[in-house]
Amino acid sequence: MLIGSIEAGGTKFVCAVGNEDYQVQDKISFPTTTPDETLAKTRDYFKQFQLDALGVASFGPIEIRKSSPKYGYVTNTPKAGWRDTNFIGQLKRTINVPMAWTTDVNGSAYGEYVMANLANEKLDSLVYYTIGTGVGAGAVIDGNFLGSAGHPEMGHTFVKRHPDDLQFKGVCPFHGDCLEGLVSGPTFEARLGQKGETVPADHPVWDIMAYYIAQAALQATLIIRPDKIVFGGGVVSPALLEKVRQQFTTLLNDYIELPPLSQYLVRPVVANNGSATLGNFALGYKELTR
Amino acid sequence: MLIGSIEAGGTKFVCAVGNEDYQVQDKISFPTTTPDETLAKTRDYFKQFQLDALGVASFGPIEIRKSSPKYGYVTNTPKAGWRDTNFIGQLKRTINVPMAWTTDVNGSAYGEYVMANLANEKLDSLVYYTIGTGVGAGAVIDGNFLGSAGHPEMGHTFVKRHPDDLQFKGVCPFHGDCLEGLVSGPTFEARLGQKGETVPADHPVWDIMAYYIAQAALQATLIIRPDKIVFGGGVVSPALLEKVRQQFTTLLNDYIELPPLSQYLVRPVVANNGSATLGNFALGYKELTR
Repeated sequence: MLIGSIEAGGTKFVCAVGNEDYQVQDKISFPTTTPDETLAKTRDYFKQFQLDALGVASFGPIEIRKSSPKYGYVTNTPKAGWRDTNFIGQLKRTINVPMAWTTDVNGSAYGEYVMANLANEKLDSLVYYTIGTGVGAGAVIDGNFLGSAGHPEMGHTFVKRHPDDLQFKGVCPFHGDCLEGLVSGPTFEARLGQKGETVPADHPVWDIMAYYIAQAALQATLIIRPDKIVFGGGVVSPALLEKVRQQFTTLLNDYIELPPLSQYLVRPVVANNGSATLGNFALGYKELTR
Repeated sequence: MLIGSIEAGGTKFVCAVGNEDYQVQDKISFPTTTPDETLAKTRDYFKQFQLDALGVASFGPIEIRKSSPKYGYVTNTPKAGWRDTNFIGQLKRTINVPMAWTTDVNGSAYGEYVMANLANEKLDSLVYYTIGTGVGAGAVIDGNFLGSAGHPEMGHTFVKRHPDDLQFKGVCPFHGDCLEGLVSGPTFEARLGQKGETVPADHPVWDIMAYYIAQAALQATLIIRPDKIVFGGGVVSPALLEKVRQQFTTLLNDYIELPPLSQYLVRPVVANNGSATLGNFALGYKELTR
């Protein structure tokens, strides 16, 4: 069995082939330019292989309702040139195999869900947040994705502002100080005029970040009641995650019973941002055997 | 077919019998006192009938995981005397029929979901908030309840504070200014020293309430992506709901496509707080035919 994976990010595409046992046999990555050019490169890559199925996880927003005439499209994205791109349609010009289509964060969520359960974690449900250039999350519940009217946009809810951060207006072009506007990577430049990597570990901004990310985890916890919440993306280092756990403990105030936070609020089990590729293999295989 | 319903609230119990066509044949209500007394009254009521199944929707927190030895219990409730009450166990002393067991808000959510679909609304999913003495919500997705590790506690997430309300500490004994702490019924007394019913329609507190409730609706929207959100409970009058829709529109800023808000953010379709009773009939029937 040979299954393809496309992880379509706003900055780069990662294409891979592997099998239903989650072994990556080949992998390539290239920058995201125009839809025509990027999707032609993608088709060219897969021409080398005899695929049985393909899993695609894309940046968004995307149309995931099979009943919609725009199923398989990237829809009203702010990314230049990509609005209303028939992503799946362009692939189908040369690739004629069963295709799964979901968001980048859903792909990662699925990879984490599958790999954790292979490691015998016995999860019924999992939420995966990415906190990087943007903020988003996907949720898997009993093997299905959360979101029937569309995919979640959990990065755009509002949170209680930190008392030492009230003057910061946030960077989200749609919502100002929504979660993405307060904790995405570009907020370091906006707040401090420097990149996140250069901010010392004892800078108070980390407590502010942790306060907001803990509230995101609290929203996911109290609304979805998942078995585990995973934080991917470039912003949440192990040190920040430990601060998030502390703030989460304070905010939750023992209101509900949870697993130890060291097992509940965690970094990905799949190394090197590989969750989406493995998730795509699983989703492609599921589509094939549906 | 005769199906029983118990809507177990913190203030009163509503017991009813009806059928799988949602016709109420008899109904009684009595105050919630001690567990022994209240559950004995409940058993006595149902002794009059030859039930085929029973649906129970209770105040909480409750244990809903069938794998737990405490399945069927009210667990760590602040309500005096009810902590660790084996609710379903007490019923089973005299009632030997298939029983469904869920939260009060899930019962209401299910009733609204079933009745809307009977009226041909074609909903895949629905969220039901109650905003009254407390704040809670339940969600139905493709006929199942959201929440695998436990039931949602959506009333205890945090929201961005309104600039004219920053001094108010909130009334939630666990979290202070979580949603319940900011918009439940008792907040009127705490903010203004008067009952909500006596607050004039042009008082600025209604804008503050709407701001917070709109954020709750936004959390449910962006995290769950439901087809519809229903507001029950005593606080959300039609006038307040209209303000909620306006604030929701401003906060969402056209970020995702939704149905017209007059159909998306709504009052219950079942009149007189009857959603849970009808939901319980459906849940009892489902348990019987499982």
